[in-house]
Amino acid sequence: MAKNAFYAQSGGVTAVINASACGVLETARLYPDKIGRVYAGRDGILGALTEDLIDTSLESETAIAGLKHTPGGAFGSCRYKLKSLDEQRVQYERLIEVFRAHDIGYFFYNGGNDSMDTAWKVAQLAGRLDFPLISIGIPKTVDNDLAATDCSPGFGSVAKYVATSMREAGLDVASMARTSTKIFVLEVMGRHAGWITAACGLAAERLNEPPHILLFPEIPFAPEPFLLRVAESVKAHGFCTIAVSEGLSDASGRLIAEMGGKDAFGHAQLGGVGQVVAQLIKDRLGYKYHWALADYLQRSARHIASRTDVEQAYAVGRAAVEAAIAGKNAVMPAITRISDTPYRWEITFAELSSVANQEKKLPREFITPDGFHITDLCRRYLAPLIEGEDFPPFTHGLPNYTRLQNSSVARKLKEFTP
Amino acid sequence: MAKNAFYAQSGGVTAVINASACGVLETARLYPDKIGRVYAGRDGILGALTEDLIDTSLESETAIAGLKHTPGGAFGSCRYKLKSLDEQRVQYERLIEVFRAHDIGYFFYNGGNDSMDTAWKVAQLAGRLDFPLISIGIPKTVDNDLAATDCSPGFGSVAKYVATSMREAGLDVASMARTSTKIFVLEVMGRHAGWITAACGLAAERLNEPPHILLFPEIPFAPEPFLLRVAESVKAHGFCTIAVSEGLSDASGRLIAEMGGKDAFGHAQLGGVGQVVAQLIKDRLGYKYHWALADYLQRSARHIASRTDVEQAYAVGRAAVEAAIAGKNAVMPAITRISDTPYRWEITFAELSSVANQEKKLPREFITPDGFHITDLCRRYLAPLIEGEDFPPFTHGLPNYTRLQNSSVARKLKEFTP
Repeated sequence: MAKNAFYAQSGGVTAVINASACGVLETARLYPDKIGRVYAGRDGILGALTEDLIDTSLESETAIAGLKHTPGGAFGSCRYKLKSLDEQRVQYERLIEVFRAHDIGYFFYNGGNDSMDTAWKVAQLAGRLDFPLISIGIPKTVDNDLAATDCSPGFGSVAKYVATSMREAGLDVASMARTSTKIFVLEVMGRHAGWITAACGLAAERLNEPPHILLFPEIPFAPEPFLLRVAESVKAHGFCTIAVSEGLSDASGRLIAEMGGKDAFGHAQLGGVGQVVAQLIKDRLGYKYHWALADYLQRSARHIASRTDVEQAYAVGRAAVEAAIAGKNAVMPAITRISDTPYRWEITFAELSSVANQEKKLPREFITPDGFHITDLCRRYLAPLIEGEDFPPFTHGLPNYTRLQNSSVARKLKEFTP
Repeated sequence: MAKNAFYAQSGGVTAVINASACGVLETARLYPDKIGRVYAGRDGILGALTEDLIDTSLESETAIAGLKHTPGGAFGSCRYKLKSLDEQRVQYERLIEVFRAHDIGYFFYNGGNDSMDTAWKVAQLAGRLDFPLISIGIPKTVDNDLAATDCSPGFGSVAKYVATSMREAGLDVASMARTSTKIFVLEVMGRHAGWITAACGLAAERLNEPPHILLFPEIPFAPEPFLLRVAESVKAHGFCTIAVSEGLSDASGRLIAEMGGKDAFGHAQLGGVGQVVAQLIKDRLGYKYHWALADYLQRSARHIASRTDVEQAYAVGRAAVEAAIAGKNAVMPAITRISDTPYRWEITFAELSSVANQEKKLPREFITPDGFHITDLCRRYLAPLIEGEDFPPFTHGLPNYTRLQNSSVARKLKEFTP
């Protein structure tokens, strides 16, 4: 007897999370004897809690295929963390109630560390309640900090975007430095882990090419050695380009972004570590600066996605469904690297219990001893993740992204406020 | 008798100014009986003043061809404005002296308004001194504010980049708005003219798609109607996306960027109008925001260049040389639109005297009556300029941009300090 499936997107979206959705939906359609309809949660797990389900079976094959090249979260995502089973048992029980009402036997949860934890708890509760449910996590995060997988779908495309942007801006600054801007700072995401900052380093093919300095959240910021390095770069090359993580902190763990003073309304200037660092250079060394804040542009830049990343995002979606069909439970498809050159990888399965609430930081040996750049070891790890292009179709000069109908499934239960 | 030529890049560089250089160099090589070597100024006009010339004849055909897909200024550019002939006659005379010493009979100056003025003055002085020189301006500016040409090479690619970025970020915000960020602000260039801001509006294919609000430098910023519009958008769509020009000002002409308070060092926060506007919304309406500052990323984003723009940039470079060969003087090749749909254009020639020091602002009829978006008339103007893709070659996952040797020509004159 076929059971329905539930799929939800969780947390910050990426340029390729919909490629994972595409993998789930296209694969589920291959097994009509096992999987009936796939319902998606509108705005993630909130859709399950509020019984706000989207019937993906009403979407055309073309629309589903279009998800593979469409950024953002096609069904909506949310930041909503379920706490422990003890604290929020009612919420977990509600999930099971909704699953029961809609004959859902498969739970696919597409997210980062928190989501793997939730998927694991749902699996546990279903077991305790003797509710037949297969719970599978599908990895996703631009931060690349998920445990048990060599890399996280979503990261490779951000990496390609920031490295490309840094290379391009570096050429711009180099050509103007003699009479104009000498300092360029690019602020990137990754509050706790420096993977995206590290990826900026790929822009440099040869020594002394932009970026000249990387500022990682893993390395406490010390102004003096930094300023010395900036001055050296300007002396040697005429300019200095810098990539900085939004999570850059000092030795006491205080965010540098919060040291930039207050705005007109008395708030700390958050999301502006790029400007704080640039202004420090201006004040101490006198150089004119520009800075850029990539913000959401970096994680939604599907137009410059990594083909490797798109393929892996699709593969973990497909593997999740295949694993469920095969009776695996409480696992997450993970990307396992077989070799760097040529790059080869395969899908393996990690126990959700081993993934949940882990955080994979940039290893110290991926950062040069001086703390300001990436090592060759890091390059070997990063390089294959940005390989290949997978441009979306363009119409009238712009990427032609897919919009779904997102039709609601009729509610069967009483209202519930999460 | 063949004469040498001098080519220089001026002012802020673009994603396609090197495509114009490519057009100049490839075309010049077709006329060896007229044009000997093409010397490029290292760092723009400064290269001529300091007799720091680059011998482009030493570059391979492959390297020259690669300029067509390489952003930045391949020979270096500068911000250095020559004032009037009376004020800076010594500088102008020095130019002629350098041209004479290196047997230069053609002056190609690739820049914006100021540069067209300089090219015009050089033409005048050469005439007065009876020095045989043909002076041709080649249009370039991301700001699209050059007179006498339907559009400026460099603008179309920025337009494509900002519209693509806004569409992508809009999808990201839409998927997260229910529980997270409701406001997204993208700050773009264009201090005096709202062309780039207007281009963000192309991201919306249908009514009410991102961007919901555009803030132009031509429209004085009034907080109350703006906040009302933001609140309406959040009510109707759950979120609000905004593109704002760095040059947004209030009714008295004061830059909004300067109203954002001081940083830790007591400086006005410049380049941060995006944050000022976002924080205003947070304070008054309470919505969580994100903002992005595209800065140099937008004008160097060759990876998402408009094919139309690349073709036009090349065409004005080629036309400049062909005009010079044909004996035209003191002109600028301009792009003249023949029709919108299908888009057809041709190269015509404008007198430098008619271009110099003009500034083309966004016409009021390109902005909706409420001041917050673009009209269909504006869309008809903008749409063809972003048509077509022209991706650069990629190697190891990143755009493979060309580096020239930039070998110096031996100096013949005494040192000169500009």
